Amino acid sequence: MDLNGLLGEKGIKTGDLVRVRAKNQIVEGYVMPSTEAEKGMLVLKLKSGYNLGLKQENIEGIEKLIESKVPGIPKPVELKSKPELPVISVLHTGGTIASRIDYSTGAVYASFKPEDLVSLVPEIQDIANIKTKQVMNIMSEDLRFRHYAKIAEAIKEEIGSGVKGIILGHGTDTMHFTSAALSFIFENLPVPVILVGAQRSTDRGSSDAAMNLICAAEFIKQTDFAGIAICMHENTSDNNCLILPGTKARKLHTSRRDAFKPVNAEAIARVNYDSRKVEFLQKDYPKATKKELVVRNGFEEKVALLKTHANMNAEQFSFFEEKGFKGLVIEGTGLGHAPVGDEPESKKILEAIKSLNDKGCTIVMTSQCLYGRTNMTVYTNLRRLVNAGVIPGEDMLPETAFIKLAWLLGNYSPEEAKKLVGKNLRGEISECSRELF
Amino acid sequence: MDLNGLLGEKGIKTGDLVRVRAKNQIVEGYVMPSTEAEKGMLVLKLKSGYNLGLKQENIEGIEKLIESKVPGIPKPVELKSKPELPVISVLHTGGTIASRIDYSTGAVYASFKPEDLVSLVPEIQDIANIKTKQVMNIMSEDLRFRHYAKIAEAIKEEIGSGVKGIILGHGTDTMHFTSAALSFIFENLPVPVILVGAQRSTDRGSSDAAMNLICAAEFIKQTDFAGIAICMHENTSDNNCLILPGTKARKLHTSRRDAFKPVNAEAIARVNYDSRKVEFLQKDYPKATKKELVVRNGFEEKVALLKTHANMNAEQFSFFEEKGFKGLVIEGTGLGHAPVGDEPESKKILEAIKSLNDKGCTIVMTSQCLYGRTNMTVYTNLRRLVNAGVIPGEDMLPETAFIKLAWLLGNYSPEEAKKLVGKNLRGEISECSRELF
Repeated sequence: MDLNGLLGEKGIKTGDLVRVRAKNQIVEGYVMPSTEAEKGMLVLKLKSGYNLGLKQENIEGIEKLIESKVPGIPKPVELKSKPELPVISVLHTGGTIASRIDYSTGAVYASFKPEDLVSLVPEIQDIANIKTKQVMNIMSEDLRFRHYAKIAEAIKEEIGSGVKGIILGHGTDTMHFTSAALSFIFENLPVPVILVGAQRSTDRGSSDAAMNLICAAEFIKQTDFAGIAICMHENTSDNNCLILPGTKARKLHTSRRDAFKPVNAEAIARVNYDSRKVEFLQKDYPKATKKELVVRNGFEEKVALLKTHANMNAEQFSFFEEKGFKGLVIEGTGLGHAPVGDEPESKKILEAIKSLNDKGCTIVMTSQCLYGRTNMTVYTNLRRLVNAGVIPGEDMLPETAFIKLAWLLGNYSPEEAKKLVGKNLRGEISECSRELF
Repeated sequence: MDLNGLLGEKGIKTGDLVRVRAKNQIVEGYVMPSTEAEKGMLVLKLKSGYNLGLKQENIEGIEKLIESKVPGIPKPVELKSKPELPVISVLHTGGTIASRIDYSTGAVYASFKPEDLVSLVPEIQDIANIKTKQVMNIMSEDLRFRHYAKIAEAIKEEIGSGVKGIILGHGTDTMHFTSAALSFIFENLPVPVILVGAQRSTDRGSSDAAMNLICAAEFIKQTDFAGIAICMHENTSDNNCLILPGTKARKLHTSRRDAFKPVNAEAIARVNYDSRKVEFLQKDYPKATKKELVVRNGFEEKVALLKTHANMNAEQFSFFEEKGFKGLVIEGTGLGHAPVGDEPESKKILEAIKSLNDKGCTIVMTSQCLYGRTNMTVYTNLRRLVNAGVIPGEDMLPETAFIKLAWLLGNYSPEEAKKLVGKNLRGEISECSRELF
């Protein structure tokens, strides 16, 4: 009997809560619809929010616990205006925070309209008057430089309309690339622009979307911070969100709600979900000035990020010369190493790097350790790289350095870009004793 | 007056402890020799072990505190044999653990002989009878697959001589690549083989070399663990070392002594430096069996690791087809994403990945989040990748997946490699509920 026959016999259908015995373990979860890819596989949504696939051959017993109660999609709430509250604009780009499960395929789809987002979190209207706008609807891994420029335009327009701040709904996968890009695009930003994502889609009980949105709105309402930041869960309990610096944050877990961590920096602030209290963790966070807002949204397309690994060959570096790249961020090992020692392959790699630099490609070194700082004076191999023209990326995250280099080469001459890439412009490089250099 | 003139006037020479006022800050440190690259720059070694460079123009005052006391290099100690103690073999490959500062250039050099290593830590002779051997002397970023095979040969030879265990001195930058490689090369390893590195060179007061070596030796002496592991500081205090699984550890800080962390796994054990007590954190760690030692040291050279980033183009993927690569580990975003959505560039990338797979290249997906697990059934874009032939790397570290794929393709047919790459062979993939799949 096939899987559908087995389920039909027990009167089990999509959405039912079932208990399954498989390989001597007991699992409870909601039956997800099977698709072509999962023929003969029972897919359960566990209470943790994760999907579990069970091969039919391993199923020793199955019983229905509760009939299907597929969560309905909330109907759009009419937006109410309260004159005493500030205005917050929610801009929408796509991603899980706007996603729900398509029960016909079991897959997660980006399909919410901005009004739906607000209707999911009605209490946000007690914090502020909410404007919404869908800028685009793209999964974050597909975002390109042109999208950053488009998002920046939408942000500028909202700022012009006089809002207290902006929430940018964004997929989490590349949220730190976008937050870095917006950090560089804008100079003298007069309001907070907070990127908010969700690790679990909004139709799950375990969704983090609502709390992240509420905390971002509270932060915007209460703060004099002005700049780009990310608002996500601090830990796996639903108590605090952190406001993370746009150039110093990174996704460090595939699925946990507290996936985003500050790297080589403190979080800007903590927002308590219950008390709505904002506690600042950074003393000198950016505030609004009377300086005019500057928007530089150029990006050089021919820029790449290259992570080094054992056993590399020169062709992996000379590719960037052959293809005419203008910028390359190397994500090296340790203090900023690439294999440029005395092995024959290493010597060829050093030649390839030298040649790439001589052709006018700006090369910046970061570390795949992520935490810590490049220091390119300590070892012989490091000096070889510096002599070949490689510029130390200080304690910049590789992703931030990549965005910064593309942005610099899109708005400045290569000579200016070389000078600016190792200097702190938007908090992407920590001040420390090495500033005395 | 130039810098050397200024120092000469004050009677200050290399190695002296000085106090400098620069930009209204006071700094104390030892004067390092200046090199061509640092003309006009005073380089101080701070008590933290870090170097600080001060531009002459910023120096407002300088005074000598203590005359130079360049630490002498300890003379080789004669190895004493105590019949009641086990024999531990210390194999040497290079890296900081064998490094000292060359006071003629100020750079760190790999120049210690193995006997010197033991002479630095005489108390290790109270734990075991120490044999030493220099297998090679290469900075770890330059290590290649052929070196893994050479190290494996040396390990096999030592095992044949009947030692209780082996310590492998190794540079920290790629120590986790080597520990993964050795984990796959050896099956049924009968003894512990512990990789030990140092983040600070042995002529510094802050060196971690001695404690890491002592803890590794104590662990080998006391344990029935048999397999590949890493022994490094647990935190920045000099109290505990962790024994980390060879396929589940990663360098996560450029300079801290506790740079190595277990990822998606528990540490195997904790060794207290003062009490010498070994506390096991894993219950089911590998132990010696009566099965015969198997050594498979083949590696396919044409394998690479590719980290994805925003704004990629298809040429970054088709490069691997043009160059005839046999294996590619993609370090994607989130649950295992690459840009393969509906943007024109994304569509071309999907085509490039499909074509690469069709040419017989085995493609494995891991996550640049590092923590967590790929799950390639959740989103439409993920299913597209799986349909293009991409194999989920489960919760393997990207570096481990890269080494595993090269090793599989070096010892098995591509068909076997495809089957084995997503299966747990050496603890590189965690057992969890998804094992029910």
